Amino acid sequence: QKKVVLLHLGHYTFLCWSLRVCQTLKVVFSNPNMVNAGEMNGSGNLMDFLDEPFPDVGTYEDFHTIDWLREKSRDTDRHRKITSKSKESIWEFIKSLLDAWSGWVVMLLIGLLAGTLAGVIDLAVDWMTDLKEGVCLSAFWYSHEQCCWTSNETTFDDRDKCPQWQKWSELLVNQSEGASAYILNYFLYILWALCFAFLAVSLVRVFAPYACGSGIPEIKTILSGFIIRGYLGKWTLLIKTVTLVLVVSSGLSLGKEGPLVHVACCCGNFFSSLFSKYSKNEGKRREVLSAAAAAGVSVAFGAPIGGVLFSLEEVSYYFPLKTLWRSFFAALVAAFTLRSINPFGNSRLVLFYVEYHTPWYMAELFPFILLGVFGGLWGTLFIRCNIAWCRRRKTTRLGKYPVLEVIVITAITAIIAYPNPYTRRSTSELISELFNDCGALESSQLCDYINDPNMTRPVDDIPDRPAGPGVYTAMWQLALALVFKIVITIFTFGMKIPSGLFIPSMLAYHHHDWIIFRNWCRPGADCVTPGLYAMVGAAACLGGVTRMTVSLVVIMFELTGGLEYIVPLMAAAVTSKWVADAFGKEGIYEAHIHLNGYPFLDVKDEFTHRTLATDVMRPRRGEAPLSVLTQDSMTVEDVETLIKETDYNGFPVVVSKDSERLIGFAQRRELILAIKNARQRQDGVVSNSIVYFTEDPPELPPNSPHPLKLRRILNLSPFTVTDHTPMETVVDIFRKLGLRQCLVTRSGRLLGIITKKDVLRHMAQMANQDPESIMFN
Amino acid sequence: QKKVVLLHLGHYTFLCWSLRVCQTLKVVFSNPNMVNAGEMNGSGNLMDFLDEPFPDVGTYEDFHTIDWLREKSRDTDRHRKITSKSKESIWEFIKSLLDAWSGWVVMLLIGLLAGTLAGVIDLAVDWMTDLKEGVCLSAFWYSHEQCCWTSNETTFDDRDKCPQWQKWSELLVNQSEGASAYILNYFLYILWALCFAFLAVSLVRVFAPYACGSGIPEIKTILSGFIIRGYLGKWTLLIKTVTLVLVVSSGLSLGKEGPLVHVACCCGNFFSSLFSKYSKNEGKRREVLSAAAAAGVSVAFGAPIGGVLFSLEEVSYYFPLKTLWRSFFAALVAAFTLRSINPFGNSRLVLFYVEYHTPWYMAELFPFILLGVFGGLWGTLFIRCNIAWCRRRKTTRLGKYPVLEVIVITAITAIIAYPNPYTRRSTSELISELFNDCGALESSQLCDYINDPNMTRPVDDIPDRPAGPGVYTAMWQLALALVFKIVITIFTFGMKIPSGLFIPSMLAYHHHDWIIFRNWCRPGADCVTPGLYAMVGAAACLGGVTRMTVSLVVIMFELTGGLEYIVPLMAAAVTSKWVADAFGKEGIYEAHIHLNGYPFLDVKDEFTHRTLATDVMRPRRGEAPLSVLTQDSMTVEDVETLIKETDYNGFPVVVSKDSERLIGFAQRRELILAIKNARQRQDGVVSNSIVYFTEDPPELPPNSPHPLKLRRILNLSPFTVTDHTPMETVVDIFRKLGLRQCLVTRSGRLLGIITKKDVLRHMAQMANQDPESIMFN
Repeated sequence: QKKVVLLHLGHYTFLCWSLRVCQTLKVVFSNPNMVNAGEMNGSGNLMDFLDEPFPDVGTYEDFHTIDWLREKSRDTDRHRKITSKSKESIWEFIKSLLDAWSGWVVMLLIGLLAGTLAGVIDLAVDWMTDLKEGVCLSAFWYSHEQCCWTSNETTFDDRDKCPQWQKWSELLVNQSEGASAYILNYFLYILWALCFAFLAVSLVRVFAPYACGSGIPEIKTILSGFIIRGYLGKWTLLIKTVTLVLVVSSGLSLGKEGPLVHVACCCGNFFSSLFSKYSKNEGKRREVLSAAAAAGVSVAFGAPIGGVLFSLEEVSYYFPLKTLWRSFFAALVAAFTLRSINPFGNSRLVLFYVEYHTPWYMAELFPFILLGVFGGLWGTLFIRCNIAWCRRRKTTRLGKYPVLEVIVITAITAIIAYPNPYTRRSTSELISELFNDCGALESSQLCDYINDPNMTRPVDDIPDRPAGPGVYTAMWQLALALVFKIVITIFTFGMKIPSGLFIPSMLAYHHHDWIIFRNWCRPGADCVTPGLYAMVGAAACLGGVTRMTVSLVVIMFELTGGLEYIVPLMAAAVTSKWVADAFGKEGIYEAHIHLNGYPFLDVKDEFTHRTLATDVMRPRRGEAPLSVLTQDSMTVEDVETLIKETDYNGFPVVVSKDSERLIGFAQRRELILAIKNARQRQDGVVSNSIVYFTEDPPELPPNSPHPLKLRRILNLSPFTVTDHTPMETVVDIFRKLGLRQCLVTRSGRLLGIITKKDVLRHMAQMANQDPESIMFN
Repeated sequence: QKKVVLLHLGHYTFLCWSLRVCQTLKVVFSNPNMVNAGEMNGSGNLMDFLDEPFPDVGTYEDFHTIDWLREKSRDTDRHRKITSKSKESIWEFIKSLLDAWSGWVVMLLIGLLAGTLAGVIDLAVDWMTDLKEGVCLSAFWYSHEQCCWTSNETTFDDRDKCPQWQKWSELLVNQSEGASAYILNYFLYILWALCFAFLAVSLVRVFAPYACGSGIPEIKTILSGFIIRGYLGKWTLLIKTVTLVLVVSSGLSLGKEGPLVHVACCCGNFFSSLFSKYSKNEGKRREVLSAAAAAGVSVAFGAPIGGVLFSLEEVSYYFPLKTLWRSFFAALVAAFTLRSINPFGNSRLVLFYVEYHTPWYMAELFPFILLGVFGGLWGTLFIRCNIAWCRRRKTTRLGKYPVLEVIVITAITAIIAYPNPYTRRSTSELISELFNDCGALESSQLCDYINDPNMTRPVDDIPDRPAGPGVYTAMWQLALALVFKIVITIFTFGMKIPSGLFIPSMLAYHHHDWIIFRNWCRPGADCVTPGLYAMVGAAACLGGVTRMTVSLVVIMFELTGGLEYIVPLMAAAVTSKWVADAFGKEGIYEAHIHLNGYPFLDVKDEFTHRTLATDVMRPRRGEAPLSVLTQDSMTVEDVETLIKETDYNGFPVVVSKDSERLIGFAQRRELILAIKNARQRQDGVVSNSIVYFTEDPPELPPNSPHPLKLRRILNLSPFTVTDHTPMETVVDIFRKLGLRQCLVTRSGRLLGIITKKDVLRHMAQMANQDPESIMFN
């Protein structure tokens, strides 16, 4: 009962806590999906359903778990119907063909839309990031690079400078150098950042509260079979796309990768709602969403194969081989669309293309493994701090001022970031520079080596030259940038704005090894590739935070094109995972799922305790007996009373209360619908009509009221286990078959019931966690 | 009963048919495992088990299916025991740590051994292939390339020619040119090939009959939970390694990739037998084997990530995320070991490194898709022809002369192959040449373009030059080579020697497009890359034959290093799969599994028929009632009679024959062991002792014989479904949980039983196939 009371008293607060959305009541008016969510989660208000035709079985209430087996079985029924119809006429045959191909069509559409959106986001972010510093006079919608690219007055050496591009100080007070110009630029930089951030957080609060955060924890939960209405809606799609551009441009320490997965999943949800095959089946819809997640990663990194693996390893729950092929196709189309829009200015799919192909040496494996250890430690630290901060936000007054929080963090970020050239620019530009080796034409400070005019081969042998003062400055700045990014990211991830984690994590690379190893070099041999260390460090940090391995390595090498470096990347990723796992098994996404109390049954958790089904099932010893329906002895009124007095999601149906032989299982929701429907149609069903779940109700005496036959809504194949079944088997069955509940029997007699929530609470209890933290069923 | 009779009458013939091993009786003496296989598959002879200590539950008979849930539950028990013990003393704690790390240790060992073996095989094949043509005078164990590499007299232009390397004709009759020298070389080439092939087939026949064939269909079956003793034994490992070198060197049209997977799995089996965690648990052992398969592909192609995906997509059945990480590690170590041995002479992992990075154009997608269509058609054709030929071999007299068959095919191959330079050399050399673009220094005929001395940039713009006569000759030869390879591969794959399919399939590329597209080229632009077409064509053909998609693309681009060509490769692979699937759903490996009648429940097959559990379960209508045990009313003699009269693998235990309430399930094998054991120990158990499956047997009158308590061997949590459960759900449960059997109940009463064989036979029947083709349980 607690849940319902909570919902009636403080429904929006409840929603906000669980989903980190803002707490105002305005959301109800701006997001129609929320209204539904509120009403349906309560106990009584079911007005919406009266309009539906009766046997509309198979829809679920919001914040509830789906039954995978039932969904699958419904899809097979549908498929059978279409196949048998297709033999009747040519039109039906064409329809069946269309139905068979609709999966691929949906994938094509998702790929096209996700690729287009990613391209648009990339272009907009480029433009708005540069807008903080200046404007292009020839066309204000050009970014710095495009502006100078189109200008004829640009020379190759000074690609960054052209008269058309003017800093704000040049434009406003006609000064490009000097203290006052610097301060003006500084001030405008902060102002723009604050504008962007304020706009973003307001849009999220007013129009689409679900658009905040990374989205990956919720998508994982949804894919595991949970319903969150509106989380992947059209409003969320629109607002998330716009605000993503704003927050990335505002210079906050966050990436666009997680949000792009969310955006792609919204696309997937939108297109799947166009085809009844997917819109009416929650299981099939999740197959589409898995593929959409792959497309999202594919466009985020330009890594189609990595995207498929990411979806497989990290996000998806039920991933049949068919979905593998479709994800592959969606990721391909998305990457291809992005390539056609071509935001990176070259024809390669690769985001940070590295040009070096120097081999690495066996001895270097040791620093690579060391980087893995650092990455693992950093991952642990980050998860702990971030979760502590988010918990504090949830439980203290802090959570009540989301806008203020965003503004403050943006202001701090902008104030600290501007003076340091490595933090001022966008993170992806920085990574691109760090990954690259120094060439002769490189103008970056990092490559400021002293050119010895006596040397014959100045271009090839850069590492031999002594480092110039620029390198040491760069070192300091990078070290400061590293510390700053580490601290600020902990506070940024989890705010009420779209936020991604990949790119910031990649930044936390360890450039110190660079100095150490420089001493090892034999003169004349280019022995150490600094860019490689940055790459491996980035992989290690990401591995520590997310605990990915295979998909991470594939993404990294699709990202950089460095096929030779699989072994170093693998070594760092595996080490990082080991080290981080030693301190705590949860990755950042699982940690956020637990923080929010979602019913997520992780495939990676192992259950090794020696409990039996009888220890977990309800009713426990001393509790009231299980609420059951009998197949032929209860009246409509009895059933209605049972429904009113309990809040279970369904009731087992038995032969009689004495024999306790199980016949089937009836869903609460369908019982309510069926009784309401029967009473409305007024076909003689009254309160003392007898409810029959049997196949052939017996002949009744002539005066007795018309019986209510409910065999249609009875699930005749409920899942049962014996009371002696070990819980590890039960957990396995719940995981693999995606059950919602399971009945417990002993020698043919019904004893009790185990729901997914019971399983999760038992697992939490066994791991010495608070079982009450699992809030949904 | 038919099975047993068949086994007693013609047991070895039966085994040979099913496993494509030779048919002589000699195998019994050379392979001790075969003896077991024979005896245990029959009905009575169980002498072997008497020596085992009694509760040795959890071993399986040969050619039987394992119960995944039971294996998992046993492993959890083991784990719990070790964890609780580890708190007792430091020694136990160290032991528990060792146990936890043993998985990674096994992976390391597998990687090392598989990498070493692959390196040795590569070197040996190089040497023996060249031995067919000539010998190195300075050191006879050098291959042609090594011989001239070590020679000082080699110039860069004529890398192939050096005085140390002599053709046989030069050595024997001192002639290097002319007709007689050609004939002598031709003759010796054939002679060597025949020697190698004869040696290989004899070794396989005498020492390890399981070492023949690709091995992948059997490994798929084993990984799905089937027991074939000796298939992954030490003898098989040794003989397969040796014969693989022989057959590849003999020039037969087969590759070493499938066999390398088999070799790696043998390594996996060997190392897992060293650790009790894996040797005593068939489920855990299969996790190791999955990872070993990944290591096998990793060394076959130098593609660690592709190997993991191959194991996931194609080979493995139960692939938890933990196995993903371990496979990844094993594949990494194996690839790294191979790189250290360095058989390809460069520091890259890549087998056929392509050097071109020219972009491709949108318009080219059309020919790529066309290549996909060709690949799909070729795949269908190949599978149909190959299966027809193999079936003919199994059912006609042809199968009785395996040695003769190998000799004839080898002779034909050698005779036809020698005159054509493209078929004479080893297949991997040929592929390497085809994949590569022409450079200025290339001496190959394919690159025989006329150098126009007036052109300013002769090196870069090869496609602009008119083709020389060599190109046209090369075209003809390649076309002939293509036809020859297609035909001969159909007959070669499936012979009684180790044989792989990958490399031959890759050959079947379609070079004709090359000519067509040359006309499209604008002068001055290098528009078409012939090597790319070869690569895409190879991917399409492999895709058509094996029906892989994601793993194929990853393997192809790890193989060639061509990261830019993901999109063309994906397009071709997906098209090829679609086209091939339109003609038949089975890939070559599934087709061979079906041909052999293994009980393989493919995860890719969808079951969409509207049958219920009650239609499939035994006993059918009209059959004798189900053989059950009662919990407290049967004597030892009753049980023994039941065991003798039936050949079921287990019996349900019920409360009483009247109530039919299910208590549990007892395995046949464990019943026999328990009764034998009790009678031997002579603790008062006689024929009319009562067998109790209850927890507390009642007090017996003083004179009655001592009761036999068997609750220990009773499985108290047998899997049950109701009779109304749709078969699609039952199939899903069997697949996902890896069940061996499932009991069927109706309102708490036991009705019947469904075994994996019943499910498979039902599926075959529904697909209009012969249900009797499934021979094992």
